[in-house]
Amino acid sequence: MPNQIPSRLDDLEKRNIVVERMQQRGVELSEIAAITLDLQSPYIKDLDFDTCIDHVERVVRKREVQNAILTGLELDILAEKGLISEPLSTMLNEDHGLYGIDEILALAIVNVYGSIGFTNFGYVDKVKPGIMAILDKEGKTKEKCHTFLDDIVGAIAAAAASSIAHRYG
Amino acid sequence: MPNQIPSRLDDLEKRNIVVERMQQRGVELSEIAAITLDLQSPYIKDLDFDTCIDHVERVVRKREVQNAILTGLELDILAEKGLISEPLSTMLNEDHGLYGIDEILALAIVNVYGSIGFTNFGYVDKVKPGIMAILDKEGKTKEKCHTFLDDIVGAIAAAAASSIAHRYG
Amino acid sequence: MPNQIPSRLDDLEKRNIVVERMQQRGVELSEIAAITLDLQSPYIKDLDFDTCIDHVERVVRKREVQNAILTGLELDILAEKGLISEPLSTMLNEDHGLYGIDEILALAIVNVYGSIGFTNFGYVDKVKPGIMAILDKEGKTKEKCHTFLDDIVGAIAAAAASSIAHRYG
Amino acid sequence: MPNQIPSRLDDLEKRNIVVERMQQRGVELSEIAAITLDLQSPYIKDLDFDTCIDHVERVVRKREVQNAILTGLELDILAEKGLISEPLSTMLNEDHGLYGIDEILALAIVNVYGSIGFTNFGYVDKVKPGIMAILDKEGKTKEKCHTFLDDIVGAIAAAAASSIAHRYG
Repeated sequence: MPNQIPSRLDDLEKRNIVVERMQQRGVELSEIAAITLDLQSPYIKDLDFDTCIDHVERVVRKREVQNAILTGLELDILAEKGLISEPLSTMLNEDHGLYGIDEILALAIVNVYGSIGFTNFGYVDKVKPGIMAILDKEGKTKEKCHTFLDDIVGAIAAAAASSIAHRYG
Repeated sequence: MPNQIPSRLDDLEKRNIVVERMQQRGVELSEIAAITLDLQSPYIKDLDFDTCIDHVERVVRKREVQNAILTGLELDILAEKGLISEPLSTMLNEDHGLYGIDEILALAIVNVYGSIGFTNFGYVDKVKPGIMAILDKEGKTKEKCHTFLDDIVGAIAAAAASSIAHRYG
Repeated sequence: MPNQIPSRLDDLEKRNIVVERMQQRGVELSEIAAITLDLQSPYIKDLDFDTCIDHVERVVRKREVQNAILTGLELDILAEKGLISEPLSTMLNEDHGLYGIDEILALAIVNVYGSIGFTNFGYVDKVKPGIMAILDKEGKTKEKCHTFLDDIVGAIAAAAASSIAHRYG
Repeated sequence: MPNQIPSRLDDLEKRNIVVERMQQRGVELSEIAAITLDLQSPYIKDLDFDTCIDHVERVVRKREVQNAILTGLELDILAEKGLISEPLSTMLNEDHGLYGIDEILALAIVNVYGSIGFTNFGYVDKVKPGIMAILDKEGKTKEKCHTFLDDIVGAIAAAAASSIAHRYG
């Protein structure tokens, strides 16, 4: 199929949009990589920060991951702006514990590197290390909605840890 | 724990909101039940329409299902209104085949009655019986966005078929 | 459909088989309920042990849960007996961290009460409270294979916590 | 991390074991690729058989896919040999429609290329094209158990179709 151009090139462009959007919402890739380093360093000898950044980069170049991020952040932003109808608006703005769709989107991200990422995701979602605790606290204020963002950050960190485990484990 | 009031009563109220919202988007529960009847009648002798309606009702009373429906329909509606930012807006309005998050939400619905629902969901999503074909056609016009709705309809029909299979199979 | 006998009655009989099989492998439902109580008591005021036992019971009466338990325990037992072929035998007997199918079966259990169970599952799978630590230690000896059992225990505890959250949350 | 040797090299060796094991159970990769070609040719202009074989190859080199195949085939083989205990033995040998764990393993395979594979898997699992119909018929005899194999074949075909869609779609 010599005339077909792989469409994956678009994913690099979308990578930039996704990373910029996360920065606007208060998250740097380096803060996600810090969680990955914490998660995976007990299992991989000499794991360094650069390797973690590299694997976080791989995760955010995956199309399904990008689409999950774009969709989740859009819902957070529209909820903050008051553009979501009820009863969804209250569930999102109050980060209702039984909403469940934030975990569903996180799963779509974690999935990409196989099932071993679930454990890491569940753990960070409960322990909320680093930037996740900050997002959680901000999300509890009236101005900010981070219902999807904190799960997305945890899911990217867990997926990157899983990618490292598959490579060096 | 005698003083605790089960919170499930809220789910009946949300059931009415969800059903009304689907009607506004062009779908009656009876149209979903018709797909369930088609799917499951080869396997259950004497399966009737009322049983299908009954099990579709059970599905839309589940909280996770309701939250998936509310979230998916909100995204369809906001996409139609032009309130979604790019590049997500184009993906939703053109029902981009590689978007993937519509299938993720459908999975959250199908999941509720166990893994045997996946087969039915995949089948109707491809064959598009009854109301699903109408939604698909409408969704291809410039005015309408049914990116999530058609998957939601297929997922509810598949979940109800799975619920019937578990009860009478 | 007045002449149809619901097949769910079989599930009670299978419940007894499943509970007995877990006892033979070293796990009592009460030990699972203890993990559920730990997990959920920070969120539900006055949550008591009996409520946890009750919800663990609900989980092990679900057909998909029973089938996941029966399949996982069978693989553990056959691995101990040396009846599994290579390279699967070594992966199971050494509880290889990248095997991943144990998490997949756990997911089938956790799924039954919606996505909010994932977080709890991931957390206990990493922290290994109570009976899970004992199983993990035993599983590292040459005689015992608990590759599936420890994930199954964590998944039932997480699913019961999720069931309680949906009821009283 | 210059001294770390990527462990992925093992996956090539395991690829050979997995492919041989499937051949012994009656399935060639070319028969899976034929299903992929059927599934994806309506969407990709000029899609040829060699491209399908190439993407089937990619799928069976993924570790999680290999582990799902090895586990499912082991259960089929042990069920045929009468080495599985009851009630699981009867469920496997009769390919009980509500067993559900075969679909769970299939999902682990389909997952690897994102959620768009679900639709294809559900469709082929119901329509049973090519080799899948043969496996299904053989599995209904007393001598053969193909409870997992037919789902595995459908899942690999669907995952390869999804891989092609992501590349050329």
